[in-house]
Amino acid sequence: MSPASAFSPRVQQLLAQMTLEEKIGQMTQLNLSAINTTGENKDVVLDSAKAAALVRDFHVGSFINGEAVPAAQWVRYCAALQRIALRESRLHIPVLYGIDHVHGASYVSGTAIFPHNLNLGATFNPELARLTARATVLESADLGHRWLFAPNLDLGVNTYWPRLYESYGEDPLVAATLGAAFVREIQTNKEIAPYQVAACAKHFLGYSDPRNGWDRTNALIPDQRLQEFFRPSFQAAIDSGVKSVMVNSGAINGEAVHASRAILTDLLRGQMGFKGVVVTDWEDINRLVKVQKVAPNEKEATWMAVDAGIDVAMTPYNTNFCQFVKELVQEGRLTPERIELSAGRVLQMKDEIGLFENPMPRADRLARVGDPALRAQAVAAARESLVLLKNRNNALPLAPARVKRLLVLGPSAESRANLCGGWTLGWQGRPEGDFPKDVPTLVDALRKEYPNAAIETLPYSTATGNTLPANVTAAAKRADAVVLALGERPYTEVLGNTSDLTLPEDQQQLARAAQASGKPTVLVVIGGRPSIIRSVAAGSAAIIWAGLPGYGGGTALAEVISGRTNPSGRLPFTYPQFAGHITNYHHDNSENSLDLKDFAAGFGQTAPKYQSGMLTEFGEGLSYTSFAYSGLALSDSALTGTGARLRATVRVANTGPRAGQEAVLWFLTDEVGRVARPVRLLKHFEKQPFAAGQSREMAFTIDPLRDLSYPDGHGRPQLEDGWYTLRVGSQMARFRYAGKATAERQAASGSTN
Amino acid sequence: MSPASAFSPRVQQLLAQMTLEEKIGQMTQLNLSAINTTGENKDVVLDSAKAAALVRDFHVGSFINGEAVPAAQWVRYCAALQRIALRESRLHIPVLYGIDHVHGASYVSGTAIFPHNLNLGATFNPELARLTARATVLESADLGHRWLFAPNLDLGVNTYWPRLYESYGEDPLVAATLGAAFVREIQTNKEIAPYQVAACAKHFLGYSDPRNGWDRTNALIPDQRLQEFFRPSFQAAIDSGVKSVMVNSGAINGEAVHASRAILTDLLRGQMGFKGVVVTDWEDINRLVKVQKVAPNEKEATWMAVDAGIDVAMTPYNTNFCQFVKELVQEGRLTPERIELSAGRVLQMKDEIGLFENPMPRADRLARVGDPALRAQAVAAARESLVLLKNRNNALPLAPARVKRLLVLGPSAESRANLCGGWTLGWQGRPEGDFPKDVPTLVDALRKEYPNAAIETLPYSTATGNTLPANVTAAAKRADAVVLALGERPYTEVLGNTSDLTLPEDQQQLARAAQASGKPTVLVVIGGRPSIIRSVAAGSAAIIWAGLPGYGGGTALAEVISGRTNPSGRLPFTYPQFAGHITNYHHDNSENSLDLKDFAAGFGQTAPKYQSGMLTEFGEGLSYTSFAYSGLALSDSALTGTGARLRATVRVANTGPRAGQEAVLWFLTDEVGRVARPVRLLKHFEKQPFAAGQSREMAFTIDPLRDLSYPDGHGRPQLEDGWYTLRVGSQMARFRYAGKATAERQAASGSTN
Repeated sequence: MSPASAFSPRVQQLLAQMTLEEKIGQMTQLNLSAINTTGENKDVVLDSAKAAALVRDFHVGSFINGEAVPAAQWVRYCAALQRIALRESRLHIPVLYGIDHVHGASYVSGTAIFPHNLNLGATFNPELARLTARATVLESADLGHRWLFAPNLDLGVNTYWPRLYESYGEDPLVAATLGAAFVREIQTNKEIAPYQVAACAKHFLGYSDPRNGWDRTNALIPDQRLQEFFRPSFQAAIDSGVKSVMVNSGAINGEAVHASRAILTDLLRGQMGFKGVVVTDWEDINRLVKVQKVAPNEKEATWMAVDAGIDVAMTPYNTNFCQFVKELVQEGRLTPERIELSAGRVLQMKDEIGLFENPMPRADRLARVGDPALRAQAVAAARESLVLLKNRNNALPLAPARVKRLLVLGPSAESRANLCGGWTLGWQGRPEGDFPKDVPTLVDALRKEYPNAAIETLPYSTATGNTLPANVTAAAKRADAVVLALGERPYTEVLGNTSDLTLPEDQQQLARAAQASGKPTVLVVIGGRPSIIRSVAAGSAAIIWAGLPGYGGGTALAEVISGRTNPSGRLPFTYPQFAGHITNYHHDNSENSLDLKDFAAGFGQTAPKYQSGMLTEFGEGLSYTSFAYSGLALSDSALTGTGARLRATVRVANTGPRAGQEAVLWFLTDEVGRVARPVRLLKHFEKQPFAAGQSREMAFTIDPLRDLSYPDGHGRPQLEDGWYTLRVGSQMARFRYAGKATAERQAASGSTN
Repeated sequence: MSPASAFSPRVQQLLAQMTLEEKIGQMTQLNLSAINTTGENKDVVLDSAKAAALVRDFHVGSFINGEAVPAAQWVRYCAALQRIALRESRLHIPVLYGIDHVHGASYVSGTAIFPHNLNLGATFNPELARLTARATVLESADLGHRWLFAPNLDLGVNTYWPRLYESYGEDPLVAATLGAAFVREIQTNKEIAPYQVAACAKHFLGYSDPRNGWDRTNALIPDQRLQEFFRPSFQAAIDSGVKSVMVNSGAINGEAVHASRAILTDLLRGQMGFKGVVVTDWEDINRLVKVQKVAPNEKEATWMAVDAGIDVAMTPYNTNFCQFVKELVQEGRLTPERIELSAGRVLQMKDEIGLFENPMPRADRLARVGDPALRAQAVAAARESLVLLKNRNNALPLAPARVKRLLVLGPSAESRANLCGGWTLGWQGRPEGDFPKDVPTLVDALRKEYPNAAIETLPYSTATGNTLPANVTAAAKRADAVVLALGERPYTEVLGNTSDLTLPEDQQQLARAAQASGKPTVLVVIGGRPSIIRSVAAGSAAIIWAGLPGYGGGTALAEVISGRTNPSGRLPFTYPQFAGHITNYHHDNSENSLDLKDFAAGFGQTAPKYQSGMLTEFGEGLSYTSFAYSGLALSDSALTGTGARLRATVRVANTGPRAGQEAVLWFLTDEVGRVARPVRLLKHFEKQPFAAGQSREMAFTIDPLRDLSYPDGHGRPQLEDGWYTLRVGSQMARFRYAGKATAERQAASGSTN
């Protein structure tokens, strides 16, 4: 292709004037530590001389990163940096600042911290993904943050993976729908005019299912599976216009993705039609040498990555990349056209977000940062994201009128950090003291929710002492009920690697001590991935999966416990029951669990450990009201070709005593397929509020190519004649697709219709 | 191809006379329940009328299965069956009887039960695989068992898989070497003349690494990985002339292997050159419909499997297969040539093993069955297969002179069944009472080994009672040491599926109660796969991995404990430390565990669960003597082409006080590779006895194509210039491969040499 023709006149003009070095500079991205006063990551104070030298000598096109500092400081920092860039750049090309606001403007002080994506997945509500995106740009676009490294569109199929919580869960459609809503809001929000912000779909592709569960390692994902499960969320983002894509830091099938032309060019650009900027993840070209060992040195790694298809190198500490690319061009191993193509894509993105017209941040709308309305939206999102997994004998809600004394225990009882997880105020989160005091902890929120009750807690650090279980049991006996706020502390990436998801032994002991009191215990599971809670689940009266609900987590939990909020979240992943077994709801037929009890008995065995491995299935979640599904009807018994449509309707009724929201999930099963078919796959979902007693008809129109076909390893749709099963709630119906049979019949009868 | 031309004159003549139905019959294999009196699997009494009808009406070519009955009964059974076959078959074609003797002639009463393959892998001694094969045919060929469904050549990379113990472990070279030795002995043993026996390499291919750890489910194995890790053992068997191959019952990358032409024809026959018989596993054509759901009905499944490349259908209960194949030929969907090809392969195998000349079993050499010399070889194999994983302060051996009282606890203390596992006397093993009383249990063997000591035990069924831990502790206090015989009861296939490898809680309690005594405890891990023993490992003075050592297990364990036998086994797989993490020693560079302690501390974290995940690495195992490696030398610093060779030598010395055997393991590392390279891979091994003080030079000659190249996804060798690291014992050396560089230099200098 002729690269220039794809770009705007401004970009074409610039490219025509730029030297090779200037073009390479656009491909170069440095960490803020290279331009701040201390060289420390957390420091957001510009060292003008460093910045000037990097722009003047290396033409660096973008900078990134930071930690939460006041908005005004960000404005000063980005303004000073941009002034230097415009002055030192021969062609006055502004620099672009990229940042990891992944659940609200999380690297700015005082903003609204929304639930992480896994919680948004639990809401089954794309509007909440949109509101998260809106709050993010409202609280950061003015500050100079014009490139957002979000959304994460990795499919959350592996509960060991330490970034599970950054995904929307294990379902491709949920990830595609919520991710696209996020992308569109980020890139088209008009309230931030004259600014625009570029989103970044990450991490392309297959990053989320490493064989060993550890971050940045090898995933075994055959092409067909990659196409069917891992591509849709990225395709949806591309179809929604996402301007950039960040690369998977790991490997697929032994091939480092940063060095994979098959993935970064053939698949991403060829098959999926992506035209924008491909950026590496952190230091990943160098890691082709240091970690993955697919290149003997950094220069060779640079060649591999550029040849594979990257446009921007998040180098992030030095300018070696500039030197290597220049040498590779001089040696004829990279063409000048290839460099122009990448530089042009970066400039095109800058042009499309209006960076040339509006390069400078502004401080006149900073009242938007910390807007209570945004904080309230974060609480609302948290409310919808909690999933009630168990509620024995309606143990919940604990009506305030009937509660005199509540005991709240566990590492998350008084923690704000644990509710928020990684990527909050800083990469690995920040110490408790750094969080705003007006963000309620679970204990704070319960005290507000139960003004007439005593809310007691025991400090967690001592709660694990040898002598304590007796104290816990005694304290629990004095209370009407016990809330166990268990789970994980913040982490992300390799620091969250683990080899055992079992709830830590000290937390198990705490739960058992509380349960020994005989009082009802409410287990609240907080953290970025599901702890294995089998040993304490049976003894709990109620279990709430809270995930990482963000700043609204304490309030939302207290309201669900008190009954003020009726929970409506549904599990966005399959909650494992055993440490050694990961199953997704869309597993294939061969993985169906068998009831082997009788069979085993015939061999004198009990097969006690053979279990489905699931504590709770994807899409499940309880409510304080009840919903009934009835009258599933299909507009026809068969679809006769790709142009045909089949409309399914079902009546959903709130049959319980109070209002509630219901996520109506439509699953399809392709009963027979040449490639192993998932036992079911979500094809449509819609969440609606229902007043007590209210009912309405919900509908799903089935489109054969979209809903019945599956891709082969090259992404070509396979649509086979045969039977399909549709499931929604308790309802089930079967229908046939008979496209080939119909065509043959028509051909035989001479029909052309 | 013209099928007939590949076959012997006898087979060609037969094919020329056979009807379509007769050919289909050769492709049909029925279970013995179809021809015995009761229709029960375990019954080995022929119903002549049933057998006659099946041979006469359906021309059935082979029968299978059974349980351990006396040799004379097998002779009667097979003789009667063969007489009927020869009489009822129009062309007097004998039937072939196939059986699952996988560790000795395990379906015959009174034979020698050898260790399972995983234990043989631990011996690193191909001669023991050969002796296992020899005993098998000596104790079964005369009985009419002429088709052996062994060896299992699946790569044991997944410790959850319930057939791990049937594999030779996780290393491709060990599996290839021991497997080939087994195949050659089965097929070329002359002591059983005039009989010959056909081996069966199973289960082709990639069966052993299902994503969810459960038997017969989907494995995610990209082509390159399949070629590099899963193919070599099967290729070695084919190169050794194996006459048949059994198919993987699961799926690879979503494709059911029984319906995969890519694997059963393109790979197996095209790339790997296999000419023999491909047999399905149990009922697997029907399971394409019932379980995998890739075919809408059994007829379509039959078409898929035959089209993919199977020759024989282990149907096993009915003759539907015959009817479906006939219809498919009549409808033109299968050609007569295709049927002739498969029938010809079966007949060719029958011809090659001399079945036409010697179809009848014989009873005049039955004294071979139960030969004490074979039983003694099984004990010898068991001795070499035990791996001493831990020996704190030389806690072992427990010299008999110093032991007055030994306490032996746990479910395997007095079990013969647990020492043998599945496929012993019957599919899922058999009750304790069915085992020969002259096979010593661990307690029996210890009493013999410690004639002057009191060997106490507590019945296991009560050892788990609530009140017992105190009794255990008290009993342990009275003893000099405690032997904890923990682990699993027999299982195989789906009945062994599990979602948690953690040592069962009752066994953990038992171990803790024993350890609370303060007396040294010796942990003996018995079972088909490694239980996670982290919680009780630290408190154990010594740990022995015993696997499934067979009839010699009790004696071998007692001798290792007493010191009569110096252990020499090395772990043939990587022993996991955590339930949630499987790592193989040949994992790739990206999976290297990082020491993140300092890094984590910088974020106020301790990363307590981030571990390598390995309790003990592949190839490790302790001895009662010590070995020192020194003077690793290479014959050159570089290899300059595929014809070049590099000889490495190292001196190995027994520096300890007593004789021992040492498996010298040579590992190579390809330091940089375009495809993720294993951090190391075993390339040569050799086990030798060393007298105390003895030393000898051990050598390994490196062949670039064999040892340095790796296959791409099509099996084409990739050989890259660059550095390699050679490791043996404590020694390490680097060298270069410079084939391309050398060729270029020679071309530049005009050299033709």
